[in-house]
Amino acid sequence: MKFRFEVLVSLKEGLLDPQGKAVQNALPTLGWSNVSDVRVGKHIELVVEADDEAAARSQVEEMARRFLSNPVIEDFRVLAAEEA
Amino acid sequence: MKFRFEVLVSLKEGLLDPQGKAVQNALPTLGWSNVSDVRVGKHIELVVEADDEAAARSQVEEMARRFLSNPVIEDFRVLAAEEA
Repeated sequence: MKFRFEVLVSLKEGLLDPQGKAVQNALPTLGWSNVSDVRVGKHIELVVEADDEAAARSQVEEMARRFLSNPVIEDFRVLAAEEA
Repeated sequence: MKFRFEVLVSLKEGLLDPQGKAVQNALPTLGWSNVSDVRVGKHIELVVEADDEAAARSQVEEMARRFLSNPVIEDFRVLAAEEA
């Protein structure tokens, strides 16, 4: 069976995020002055073939930890799966 | 009131995604050969100050459409808000 997952990778809190800062600084010039705490991270979508959802999810968690994120500076979150 | 939103920006289906391809090609060398359809996009987190959640959300949708995504090649999704 195939399962589609989404992984969100974001910088750990407290770390400087230049890309988020750039977005935040641009917003007031476009008329939006009520926005703060902008952080930019990665969104990864993938399909895993596995016997069941639990196996697929645990593989995705391992891939996220070992490969898709840098655990020193980033946190990740795996969103709920759906059958693909 | 302040509301925290997450915006997911991903390439439209059918468009070539070199970054996703690179991730997908690296996975088998790490022992994961059952992964397909890897797509890499952006994850943006932000806090909006507004009177109510509906106003905040409609502003986030407009920012996503006009500024955070390129509607020619990208789709976006706004995840449920929480009070910040």
